[in-house]
Amino acid sequence: MKIITSISDMHKVSLVLKREGRTIGFVPTMGALHKGHVTLIDKAKRENNKVVLSIFVNPIQFAPGEDYHSYPRDKERDEIMASQSGVDILFLPSADEMYPDGYETFVNVEGITELLCGKFRHGHFKGVATVVLKLFNIVMPDRAYFGEKDYQQMLVIKRMVNDLNLNIDIVSMPTIREEDGLAMSSRNTYLDSGERVSAVSLYKALKTSEDMVKNGERDTMKIINEMERIIRSETAAKIDYISICDPDTLKDIKTINGRALAALSVRIGNARLIDNCMLGVK
Amino acid sequence: MKIITSISDMHKVSLVLKREGRTIGFVPTMGALHKGHVTLIDKAKRENNKVVLSIFVNPIQFAPGEDYHSYPRDKERDEIMASQSGVDILFLPSADEMYPDGYETFVNVEGITELLCGKFRHGHFKGVATVVLKLFNIVMPDRAYFGEKDYQQMLVIKRMVNDLNLNIDIVSMPTIREEDGLAMSSRNTYLDSGERVSAVSLYKALKTSEDMVKNGERDTMKIINEMERIIRSETAAKIDYISICDPDTLKDIKTINGRALAALSVRIGNARLIDNCMLGVK
Repeated sequence: MKIITSISDMHKVSLVLKREGRTIGFVPTMGALHKGHVTLIDKAKRENNKVVLSIFVNPIQFAPGEDYHSYPRDKERDEIMASQSGVDILFLPSADEMYPDGYETFVNVEGITELLCGKFRHGHFKGVATVVLKLFNIVMPDRAYFGEKDYQQMLVIKRMVNDLNLNIDIVSMPTIREEDGLAMSSRNTYLDSGERVSAVSLYKALKTSEDMVKNGERDTMKIINEMERIIRSETAAKIDYISICDPDTLKDIKTINGRALAALSVRIGNARLIDNCMLGVK
Repeated sequence: MKIITSISDMHKVSLVLKREGRTIGFVPTMGALHKGHVTLIDKAKRENNKVVLSIFVNPIQFAPGEDYHSYPRDKERDEIMASQSGVDILFLPSADEMYPDGYETFVNVEGITELLCGKFRHGHFKGVATVVLKLFNIVMPDRAYFGEKDYQQMLVIKRMVNDLNLNIDIVSMPTIREEDGLAMSSRNTYLDSGERVSAVSLYKALKTSEDMVKNGERDTMKIINEMERIIRSETAAKIDYISICDPDTLKDIKTINGRALAALSVRIGNARLIDNCMLGVK
C-alpha cells in the first residue's frame, strides 16, 4: 500500500492511472475505520483496477462546539486496517494544504441539506460537499463509495455529482451493524458501557417502524409516536429528530403509499448517533 | 467546426480527446461575439490541440430585473465568427439541460464576490462560478481563457480553480478596445449613438487615473474624485462604483504603494458598463 500525503503527488498518481486507462475506486473517510468502511473497500476492489482510501477529518464540516477536536484519530490502526483490506493508495492530506490561507470557495446543495441533520448541524453538508468535491478533483475516481448509514450525506453527494456534471458513479452500500443492531460508526467509541446499551434503542425504533408498516400501518404520526416512545424509554437519550420522509426529497410524509425513509438522530452522552431504514410499500 | 448541443455528447468528445492525449483550450462565452472573444480564441488555438467555444446565456447569473431576456443573441452571426476564428467545437447547451428540474447545487467564492460588482449584482458571481464549474466538468479543458475586462470574474474563477483543486490553467488576456478606448462588450449594443459617445467617459476616467499615478499622485481619494468628475460630466451616466483596490483581495486602498486596480461600473441608458486598468507603482 502506497501512502501519499501531498495533494499534488496524489493528483499526479491519479493522472498516470487515468492515462494508462485504469479505473479508480475511491472511498473517502474520516478514519477510525470499522467494518462498514471495509465493506466499501471490498466493493471498490471488485469494481475497479485501483482503490484509493482517503482519511481526512474535515474541519469545515464541524460547527463550533461539535466534536472536531475529539473525533477519534488512530493513524497506525487505520493504516493496518487499510492495508489488510487491500487498499492500493492511502491518501492522508493535511488540513493546511486542503484549506490554505485565503481559502474562500464552498459548494452547497440547497433544499435537501436544510432538512433532517441539516436543521441541527448548520453548515455541515456545505462542508461535506466542498471537501468531497475537492477530493474528487484530486483523486479523479471513476466510482466513489458511501455507506447508507449516512443516507442524507449520500443523497447530497449524488445530487452534487449530478448537478455539477461530474463523471463519477456514486455507489452506496447497506449499513453494517453490530450483533445487537447498532449501526457501526466511528462515533460509537464515545459511548460508555451503559450508553452503549441505550444506543440500541435507535435500531429497536427503526425495527418497530418496519414491523408496523409490514402489519399495515400507513399513518406516519402513529409510527413516529411509537418510535419516540421506544427512544424515550432510555433516560440517557435525547432526540434530535425522528422523521418518515420521501427518500429523494427528504420531505416529511403523512401517509405511506410508496417508498419511505425512516431516519432519526439521537444524542446519547457525548455521541450524536444517526440511523435510518427504508420502509417499502409496493 | 463541429456543433454540439447535448451535454453528454460534449463530454464524450472531450473524453476521447483526453484519451488520445490531446490538449483542450476552452473559451466560455455568452455569445454576441466580438474582437475580445476572437483574441481569446486565437490564444487558445496557439496553446492547445483543440479549441472549444461555448455559448450559453446563463440564467442563474442574472438577478430578477437584470437583462437576461434582452441580452443580445445572434446564433447565426456567432457561428460564422466562431468558425472563421478557427474554433474546432462550438458547444451550445440548453438552459433546460444545464438546470433541470430539481437542480440544487451552487458554488460560491466568498469574500471577493461581495465587493465591486458583487455589491450591485446579488448572486451574480455565484451563478458565474457555478456555470463555469459545470462547463469545466463537461468540457474538461487543460486551459480556459478569460478577458481582463471582467477582472473580478477572472479573479473569482482563478480562486475557485485553485480552491477546488481543479487541474486547469486560467489564462487571462488584456481588454480589447474600440478606437476611442471603449472596452469591447456585448452590452455596448444597448447604447444609442448619444450614449455611445458618453460611454467613452469610463476609458477617459481610467486614463486619467493612470496619468495621475504616473505624475506622482498616491492618494486614491484624490484620483477617484477626479475620475468621478469626468464621469459626472456626462449627464447620462450613473455611477455604480469607482474603486482603487488591491488586485488580489479587491479591498479599497487609501495610498498606492504597489500594484493597484482601478475599476468602475457606470450605467448609461440601459447598459451597465464595467472597465478597469492596472495602476503600477514600482
